Amino acid sequence: MFRQSFHELAISTRGRGLYEFTREVEKWIEQNQFRDGLLTLHLQHTSASLLIQENASPDVRRDFEAFFARLVPDGDPIFEHTIEGDDDMPAHVRTALTTVNLSIPVHNGEMALGTWQGIFLWEHRVHSHSRRVALHFMGE
Amino acid sequence: MFRQSFHELAISTRGRGLYEFTREVEKWIEQNQFRDGLLTLHLQHTSASLLIQENASPDVRRDFEAFFARLVPDGDPIFEHTIEGDDDMPAHVRTALTTVNLSIPVHNGEMALGTWQGIFLWEHRVHSHSRRVALHFMGE
Amino acid sequence: MFRQSFHELAISTRGRGLYEFTREVEKWIEQNQFRDGLLTLHLQHTSASLLIQENASPDVRRDFEAFFARLVPDGDPIFEHTIEGDDDMPAHVRTALTTVNLSIPVHNGEMALGTWQGIFLWEHRVHSHSRRVALHFMGE
Repeated sequence: MFRQSFHELAISTRGRGLYEFTREVEKWIEQNQFRDGLLTLHLQHTSASLLIQENASPDVRRDFEAFFARLVPDGDPIFEHTIEGDDDMPAHVRTALTTVNLSIPVHNGEMALGTWQGIFLWEHRVHSHSRRVALHFMGE
Repeated sequence: MFRQSFHELAISTRGRGLYEFTREVEKWIEQNQFRDGLLTLHLQHTSASLLIQENASPDVRRDFEAFFARLVPDGDPIFEHTIEGDDDMPAHVRTALTTVNLSIPVHNGEMALGTWQGIFLWEHRVHSHSRRVALHFMGE
Repeated sequence: MFRQSFHELAISTRGRGLYEFTREVEKWIEQNQFRDGLLTLHLQHTSASLLIQENASPDVRRDFEAFFARLVPDGDPIFEHTIEGDDDMPAHVRTALTTVNLSIPVHNGEMALGTWQGIFLWEHRVHSHSRRVALHFMGE
């Protein structure tokens, strides 16, 4: 029997960086006993993004931050939109360079993620935020 | 009752920049009375992209263009594929750095977009083009 | 009748570069006589990505590689995570700058790709790898 389900996750961030929430998504799948179908995650913000990446090494997370801080520097004089601060426009650009949408097949009750893949929210603003991720499942 | 529907939007661009078409997508959802399901947008080009971003400030749009013009400069001697002009290969690279696919849940007749999120076509070529976006809805 | 189907493609890579596999995906669609629905591709790795791009010119492929080699250089001293070699962290960053998820509508038995669009696996590591792409189709 085909069915669909909606959910929303709230994720609290404490400044820039990667926040893994793979387990929260797995819990939702388990609680609803989704077996086979398609899972969609949509982040409802323009200054943070979703990322599937290495879930093991903390130095990978540090290096991501270091690379993006150099690629899209805060306070870059190229930016005119600075009303919310030096990190405002860089956060929009970092979001555009990554993504706010993920589509993950679910098979036999498990997301089709690779061994080293985790699901992260990437906060691009320097201050704390509460971020919302819309979840949708369609399948059996 | 599960059903699906296909549609195509044609978007005329007049040079580089962001062209919002959130309202055109909403109209298609309303006309067909889609209630709950998954909306997919696929842009059928390799030198323009789709972007979900800030729908308010024109200076945000200007800054996006300024940043990308510096990151992937026209006429960069690193590029050999220049047959269609100085902006040809940079347009492909900008497309690769963003995306041509979006997946957006639809709940109670509305896309699960955040307050500030709009859907944009990002034209990366300097001349005018007609761009096609394939729309697909699956749900109830 | 709505139905869904799962499949896995294994793609062998021989160092950095773009490997087209559009035909392999088309074959799966034909063999199963999928007519209308949504196709999802998910790459199960963190150092390679999926890309929809120009399927004609080899110099486009060369230029992509040249641009990314300059943007995310191997052995960049900014990176601390070097345990798997100079190309390790750059491969993660290149993956984050592109994507591991694609959603493509299928209409009348054909993917809604544009004339020049092909589906590529982008290998970001310098050595050979075997990469897995999870395929999912939902529709009629």
